[in-house]
Amino acid sequence: MANSRFEYVKNFELSDQLLPNTWVVVRIDGRGFTKFANKYSFEKPNDKRALELMNAAARTVVTEIPDITIAYGVSDEYSFVFHKTSTLFERRASKLVSTVVSTFTGYYIYLWSTYFPDQPLSAPLPSFDGRAVCYPSLENLRDYMSWRQVDCHINNLYNTTFWALIQLGGMSATEAGKQLDGSFSADKNEILFKRFSINYNNEPEIYKKGSVVFRDYELVEPGTHNIAQEVERIAQPAQLSKSQAETDKKKRTKARVVVEHLDIIKDDFWDRRPWLLSNKPGKIPKEP
Amino acid sequence: MANSRFEYVKNFELSDQLLPNTWVVVRIDGRGFTKFANKYSFEKPNDKRALELMNAAARTVVTEIPDITIAYGVSDEYSFVFHKTSTLFERRASKLVSTVVSTFTGYYIYLWSTYFPDQPLSAPLPSFDGRAVCYPSLENLRDYMSWRQVDCHINNLYNTTFWALIQLGGMSATEAGKQLDGSFSADKNEILFKRFSINYNNEPEIYKKGSVVFRDYELVEPGTHNIAQEVERIAQPAQLSKSQAETDKKKRTKARVVVEHLDIIKDDFWDRRPWLLSNKPGKIPKEP
Amino acid sequence: MANSRFEYVKNFELSDQLLPNTWVVVRIDGRGFTKFANKYSFEKPNDKRALELMNAAARTVVTEIPDITIAYGVSDEYSFVFHKTSTLFERRASKLVSTVVSTFTGYYIYLWSTYFPDQPLSAPLPSFDGRAVCYPSLENLRDYMSWRQVDCHINNLYNTTFWALIQLGGMSATEAGKQLDGSFSADKNEILFKRFSINYNNEPEIYKKGSVVFRDYELVEPGTHNIAQEVERIAQPAQLSKSQAETDKKKRTKARVVVEHLDIIKDDFWDRRPWLLSNKPGKIPKEP
Amino acid sequence: MANSRFEYVKNFELSDQLLPNTWVVVRIDGRGFTKFANKYSFEKPNDKRALELMNAAARTVVTEIPDITIAYGVSDEYSFVFHKTSTLFERRASKLVSTVVSTFTGYYIYLWSTYFPDQPLSAPLPSFDGRAVCYPSLENLRDYMSWRQVDCHINNLYNTTFWALIQLGGMSATEAGKQLDGSFSADKNEILFKRFSINYNNEPEIYKKGSVVFRDYELVEPGTHNIAQEVERIAQPAQLSKSQAETDKKKRTKARVVVEHLDIIKDDFWDRRPWLLSNKPGKIPKEP
Repeated sequence: MANSRFEYVKNFELSDQLLPNTWVVVRIDGRGFTKFANKYSFEKPNDKRALELMNAAARTVVTEIPDITIAYGVSDEYSFVFHKTSTLFERRASKLVSTVVSTFTGYYIYLWSTYFPDQPLSAPLPSFDGRAVCYPSLENLRDYMSWRQVDCHINNLYNTTFWALIQLGGMSATEAGKQLDGSFSADKNEILFKRFSINYNNEPEIYKKGSVVFRDYELVEPGTHNIAQEVERIAQPAQLSKSQAETDKKKRTKARVVVEHLDIIKDDFWDRRPWLLSNKPGKIPKEP
Repeated sequence: MANSRFEYVKNFELSDQLLPNTWVVVRIDGRGFTKFANKYSFEKPNDKRALELMNAAARTVVTEIPDITIAYGVSDEYSFVFHKTSTLFERRASKLVSTVVSTFTGYYIYLWSTYFPDQPLSAPLPSFDGRAVCYPSLENLRDYMSWRQVDCHINNLYNTTFWALIQLGGMSATEAGKQLDGSFSADKNEILFKRFSINYNNEPEIYKKGSVVFRDYELVEPGTHNIAQEVERIAQPAQLSKSQAETDKKKRTKARVVVEHLDIIKDDFWDRRPWLLSNKPGKIPKEP
Repeated sequence: MANSRFEYVKNFELSDQLLPNTWVVVRIDGRGFTKFANKYSFEKPNDKRALELMNAAARTVVTEIPDITIAYGVSDEYSFVFHKTSTLFERRASKLVSTVVSTFTGYYIYLWSTYFPDQPLSAPLPSFDGRAVCYPSLENLRDYMSWRQVDCHINNLYNTTFWALIQLGGMSATEAGKQLDGSFSADKNEILFKRFSINYNNEPEIYKKGSVVFRDYELVEPGTHNIAQEVERIAQPAQLSKSQAETDKKKRTKARVVVEHLDIIKDDFWDRRPWLLSNKPGKIPKEP
Repeated sequence: MANSRFEYVKNFELSDQLLPNTWVVVRIDGRGFTKFANKYSFEKPNDKRALELMNAAARTVVTEIPDITIAYGVSDEYSFVFHKTSTLFERRASKLVSTVVSTFTGYYIYLWSTYFPDQPLSAPLPSFDGRAVCYPSLENLRDYMSWRQVDCHINNLYNTTFWALIQLGGMSATEAGKQLDGSFSADKNEILFKRFSINYNNEPEIYKKGSVVFRDYELVEPGTHNIAQEVERIAQPAQLSKSQAETDKKKRTKARVVVEHLDIIKDDFWDRRPWLLSNKPGKIPKEP
């Protein structure tokens, strides 16, 4: 029985290849996580276990997909950055998005019991959607990352104050919302400090800065290189010699994938970690 | 701290809306499942537990996403069909694909221990990729479904014979492959029957036909309606009255999502289940 | 001197293939034609020469591109319909659009002096932009065509009344606009008839109906076939035998491409001309 | 008569927006120009009138569409470069391509009689197709331009030698082709020089280098600025003050659009004309 009569249907699959030489950001978002957070009584304004579960899942994604050079997460979203020279899955959007989403979801479910040992998962399970966005220049990519981290800051300052007004100040949600309507950062800092003796600066970094995931190599002295210029010069997919590619691969496998809570808006973070943008593995730090 | 300086990066997200009034098939495939199957010693040529786990995960996807009218699975792949009038996620490809893949993966991991109680999962976890393809006409959609089921048949007949030669006939994989090179269906049937007394027709339906997942209503007498013509007449997203939409939704929620192993190539399957193509819920069967 | 160092740039051209088995409508629109019409003192509300020039240009497009089965024009726009089985230029959107636009523009400029012998063209020249839209079902295509013809009717009734108020009634444009604000068709018909003794029904068909361009064969008795059903059954690009394709081609070349002003909303137009939808050439009418 | 019943068809038009912050190259190509060149007896290997007609048409395109900063033409093709900050037509591919193709074709037909006064055009008219390609980095854009100019060189050296062998050497086309099979540049130069006393270097620049079209301002001393770095820093569509935009517009209108035959592979061309990449108008040169 030949299958040829029906095989023409394969031709309906259209290309969704992403533009070469652009940074591909796959961002995933929790679906209906407000409801989900209530179901499992997530703590407000931040649930440490939930964030650490997100980070653990993201860490495995970065580990298993070496074309991702950096990821950034906040709340129930995570952005994964494929290096602009990556040709993984021929840069097909649906393959990139679905692989990231599938891997992330798998580990989120799998690791759940580690972070919520007392609350077994039940249907409907948490799930995530995703999308891919291309950024042509380093400036665009950096601005994207900054956009997410600024958003993290704005939301966290708001939520911290909002929940302080409720949990410590005894307000209703409506009253707290009203109070914060039209307020500036300075106002919120003042409310926290004057009313509740909370110094926002002392809040945990994971809440204020979000989480950044990457392969860790030895830091580099800033100013010893011009990574931005170098990176913009890369005009096409990397064509390394086979042996070089092998060496790189080994180094990447050996590198520890870390989760940190750092400022990724300022240059310093990037200057000291040139491998994030160059995609050339750095030096593996010596064991302590 | 305003976020406006960076917000321009949102404009880099381009539309990936799928053409209206087309059947959207989201097909997912296991990534590296040959290796995965070996790791957990899946039985050859078919592992019943693995197939039933696929089916259970697919069943939850169809249950949780009512815009899916039917799904068909074979081996480590599953095709989910969104009705051509669906406007879920504004028909954005990445949202449709990622939601299906995420939900499927989640349940696959979650239900694993039910089907493989003695083999706990360990990293690297199984994952799936996905893609969306549009089919403009009912003919195209039916041909797609037929294509998958014919593929199921061809592969299963081959695999059944191949593994019989190895497991019962003592051949090596190379020898078995050589023997089957260029053989026709009739040849394989004969090998099975003459050498191993296996009548292929008596093999389990789940292996021969794959699995089809859908909402179950009372069957309809074929020939009492012309569903094909009716369906082609639907030219745009359904604009039901609100109360009608509510009624439909309730019926869909009440309907049992079933997993069957039926011939979906012949008209009969579709003629008796007009709701699969019309998207109008049928009659809920009375409890036995 | 090899060119290989730069050739990688070819890979940046992404596919813009249109979904198979859909009707492709390429619509072109005059750019800045209000200004252009003023420059050459087009008559109001309709300039017969300008419309006939549009029609002449469209006629050559249909003649030179046999994959176009029908075109419809009104004012400074024209819609060209590629049969759903067409594989011209591998259905690449930019090739289809640019070829139609280029051919149309060329003849518009070339034939200008025939229709405007006393007004030589001067820079800036008239130009057109274009786009391609896919329609999956016959119903959608028919609705698209109807949409354009209803638009033609609505605009022409409005313009006819508007300019009568100005040219015959002595109103200013502002006054005429005010008078027609919120008016219904019946109101406009009455204004025309009562004030200016104009029976809108007697206006020239080219203004009321627009222009439809197609290959002319012998008309067919309606009701002798079910073209709609037949057309929906075509599920993939036509795979004619070579000799059949040759015969068809010859017939198409022999067929006269005509410009008519007919109702294309009602079934009758399509029923009598099955070749428009089936893409099978009809009978060449005998010379009179 | 309302049009609402059919208006849903508008929703079938999908977005074809091009990625922001990328250089958009619209390349147009003559359709069937080998046949066309024969019909009008174009001279071999190069027809000066035909090239100058192409250049004249391209000049008007650049003049009428100020978002184009540079164009490059060779043979029957022309590439038009929209600055990466351009938001013309919201960067919709079909609008950009069709407008360029339509304007170009219009002038090609219109100006034909100026360059071919003795050969009136007749149907079928010449036409052009087009496509849009995005280049993310300056390096990519420069490489694209270089690719076209190297191609010009390779083809022209080949054609010059090929036609010398035929026109001066009395060979048939087959013989000439055979002779050149597998030959290197040096070989062709030698054939030209030794057999026909032709020094390829003395061939006209328009044939060897192709034609580059741009707005002309006062040249700038190379090395006084780092345009590449500056350009890569532009991360989003230009947000000039209104008055600045007006001033720029006026300067662009005043600037002469020139056609030159220069080396656009080396840095010098770009270094001396920073406005091509920065999109900031330069100084209008004083009248001589």
